[in-house]
Amino acid sequence: MLHAVILAGGSGTRLWPLSRTHYPKQFLQLLGEHTLLQQTVLRLDNLIPPERIWIVTGSDQAHIVRSQLASLLGLDEDKVHILAEPLPKNTAAAIGLAAIHAQRQDSEAMLVVLPADHWIERQNAFGSLLDGAAKLAQHGVLVTLGIVPDYPATGYGYICRGAPVVVLRESLPERLVAYKVRLVAYKVRQFVEKPDLPTAREYLLSDTYYWNAGIFLWKASTILEEIALYLPLLAQGLEEIGQCLDNDTTEQTPAVVYSKLEAVSIDCGILEKSARLIVVPADIGWSDLGDWMTIHRLSPKDARGNVLSPNVLDIGSENSFVYSNRRKIATIGLKNTVVVDAEDALLICPIDRTEEVRTIAHRLRADGEEVAHVSRTVHRPWGTYTVLEEGAGFKVKRLVVHPGAALSLQLHRYRSEHWVVVSGVAQVTNGDLECQLHVEQSTYVPQGTVHRITNPGSELLEIIEVQTGPYLGEDDIVRFADLYQRVAPRGVF
Amino acid sequence: MLHAVILAGGSGTRLWPLSRTHYPKQFLQLLGEHTLLQQTVLRLDNLIPPERIWIVTGSDQAHIVRSQLASLLGLDEDKVHILAEPLPKNTAAAIGLAAIHAQRQDSEAMLVVLPADHWIERQNAFGSLLDGAAKLAQHGVLVTLGIVPDYPATGYGYICRGAPVVVLRESLPERLVAYKVRLVAYKVRQFVEKPDLPTAREYLLSDTYYWNAGIFLWKASTILEEIALYLPLLAQGLEEIGQCLDNDTTEQTPAVVYSKLEAVSIDCGILEKSARLIVVPADIGWSDLGDWMTIHRLSPKDARGNVLSPNVLDIGSENSFVYSNRRKIATIGLKNTVVVDAEDALLICPIDRTEEVRTIAHRLRADGEEVAHVSRTVHRPWGTYTVLEEGAGFKVKRLVVHPGAALSLQLHRYRSEHWVVVSGVAQVTNGDLECQLHVEQSTYVPQGTVHRITNPGSELLEIIEVQTGPYLGEDDIVRFADLYQRVAPRGVF
Repeated sequence: MLHAVILAGGSGTRLWPLSRTHYPKQFLQLLGEHTLLQQTVLRLDNLIPPERIWIVTGSDQAHIVRSQLASLLGLDEDKVHILAEPLPKNTAAAIGLAAIHAQRQDSEAMLVVLPADHWIERQNAFGSLLDGAAKLAQHGVLVTLGIVPDYPATGYGYICRGAPVVVLRESLPERLVAYKVRLVAYKVRQFVEKPDLPTAREYLLSDTYYWNAGIFLWKASTILEEIALYLPLLAQGLEEIGQCLDNDTTEQTPAVVYSKLEAVSIDCGILEKSARLIVVPADIGWSDLGDWMTIHRLSPKDARGNVLSPNVLDIGSENSFVYSNRRKIATIGLKNTVVVDAEDALLICPIDRTEEVRTIAHRLRADGEEVAHVSRTVHRPWGTYTVLEEGAGFKVKRLVVHPGAALSLQLHRYRSEHWVVVSGVAQVTNGDLECQLHVEQSTYVPQGTVHRITNPGSELLEIIEVQTGPYLGEDDIVRFADLYQRVAPRGVF
Repeated sequence: MLHAVILAGGSGTRLWPLSRTHYPKQFLQLLGEHTLLQQTVLRLDNLIPPERIWIVTGSDQAHIVRSQLASLLGLDEDKVHILAEPLPKNTAAAIGLAAIHAQRQDSEAMLVVLPADHWIERQNAFGSLLDGAAKLAQHGVLVTLGIVPDYPATGYGYICRGAPVVVLRESLPERLVAYKVRLVAYKVRQFVEKPDLPTAREYLLSDTYYWNAGIFLWKASTILEEIALYLPLLAQGLEEIGQCLDNDTTEQTPAVVYSKLEAVSIDCGILEKSARLIVVPADIGWSDLGDWMTIHRLSPKDARGNVLSPNVLDIGSENSFVYSNRRKIATIGLKNTVVVDAEDALLICPIDRTEEVRTIAHRLRADGEEVAHVSRTVHRPWGTYTVLEEGAGFKVKRLVVHPGAALSLQLHRYRSEHWVVVSGVAQVTNGDLECQLHVEQSTYVPQGTVHRITNPGSELLEIIEVQTGPYLGEDDIVRFADLYQRVAPRGVF
């Protein structure tokens, strides 16, 4: 059976200020009405049922994945498996982990490995190719999709094809024939790094180079065999994890074992060495949406080549990309310019220098700037909080608590809190007091008092919280109980 | 005696998004540590005492003027006269009004008329020129300062000089001689409108054209005589106002009379007609700071010609102006670009097109956009409020109340309010309850309850207000008493 392994780790830099360390690209809605992660899942609709979807992500992002799946209508999101990595260990480990899990469920599992943060324009062609490539992979090969380039990209790695592999037409699924997708396959001669522009132009003309999109198909057993062959230490660690899973039904990844795993990419660790690799050319309108220039290129534009948010008032700009979150933006005569306005940060740069946004993001990290890591709105397992204002001795937040969710049972040593409910219903623990608060009602939690907020209703609960005290850092928290296993001092709330 | 008439009316457009209809240029801190209005007042230090300063402004801006004067250390601001115009009537009426007032205080009053929103680099030269020009004006002439141009400006009106006027050296004050300021004077041949660039270049070379800066000197009696001669209807209205003042000690301008006054500029109404006009060339480093290009030109720049706020992270920009209020801004490779980031609006435009910001401001007004009129922080007679967040059924504000100030005694028909004091002390009326709230204390004002906030202390009072209700418009207010005469339904709070 076909299973999907969606790799949803990684931390965003080149799409700052929308992407942040703790809220990377896959969680953003960049093109279309869904986030890239949601699009990746929706793309599998009718191909792979939710119980055969395995999403590998960081343990601090698992709740964002869960929340993004939950907002997809028609998806039975509880069936999707979210495999939380205790810490990032690169793609070989992530894929190995998913292979172990899938194989335990289905010894004949066929895996399609998909990054969570890519764009595919031609969904039908993609689906058909998967069918066909899966047939090939039944023969124990490692299949990588090679994206047929349509411009001399310098931002991607390339795959140089070797000799053709014979593909029998009768071995292909009908679906592929119906969509008139041409399925061919080649041996892989070579992986090459991101080229300079003249080289990229040669590649484009040569017709023998493809973009490496990180989309692979193989049987779980095949990739585990290759891992055993080329990365024996990783194989050993994965085996240990498998043994742990025998004694645990929660699908939790054992942190002690995982932290010892070898951290290597699947490309370096396996694909560049394996003799079983073939490449299937794929003309599916793929992009990694890796920088703002690419997003501009793929977005619908006005007559002057601009992509402008609705609240932009423009006079005569050309070939520009202006994204505004909420604020009014006035632009005059921009040319080939990218403007990205987040609530707490702003980026302005020439459209042909958007690669350098990575440098900006790295500098902000090095400077310890909070805008590198989190947005004004911070996602927590129970919902979100947004800092509305900070001043000497006070901080104002808006809390949004999901139905059925609860903040931890906690106290603060240095601050008091006032809560005013502005929508939904709150079940409140405040010292010895237990009560329900409705819209317009409020309570006061003195410093040092054990408290908790729960949303017992079926609507969102929104609370305005006014904190006062000499110290208002997020780390002033003592947790006594938590639905999300955060009793150890880690994260906030 | 020398009196100053400071014209502080007008509404900002070209410096949007910092200037707004209700918070124009004169109230902004654009160059140096004081606002332009404050600089205009400070410039008179040692020349004119506060009791001889007359500031003419709109009645809805008088409280901002008062507040900006109050924050000037060492100024006895209560002595400064603020003449509030019930509605704007252009400069002839504003100057006439001030002349009436000054003459009542001092029948020999000599007036120097100064716009509140200009920049003067060479303060000492300016002061000396005033002394000298005042001597000339004693002879019953109208003196206008003609700014010696130092570049071919197309944004200013020009004055073409005529024959020289004989100025006796012995009639000049010693001070002028000491500063080696050259005092000469000419008849005025002609006022000319803003020229195109070739014409402006001719003017610059000709040595006979000056910028019209709107800085004038004349005796109150002289200008009133000229108003009587050229604008007899205005003269009649001013006489009526004088009669009202005989019966009223508050210096309040009678709205009924003022609303009937002829609205004409002093240039059109008097100066272009008067036979008594002379021009004194002034090389005082003057600028009207009329657009962002000019502010960039006059600001201290880095080695690449940039003016960047401290929270800007830049890679390789040149000759650009990036103003950030609070947010982190990342810029890459900007060239000749202006970026002005206010909390609720953003402007990006080429430095040579900053004149077009006026078009932006006018379009925003035409579209009924709030960002045309007010900033996120709104100034009221009692202090300020800032809307921190708005959502369905709720609004969060930060109120800052000046020491001794009070909001009106009021009620709201549709909303309830929670107040949490986060700094200072509040004296609160809440229905029948009277109490003091200190930091960390709060109260709840149910819909329909008469309430009032007063700051009885000597520190600022800060309150976080959470409003809830079906309608949260600023016009949901019934006032019963107000320190600022706002019991009629007008303004907010």
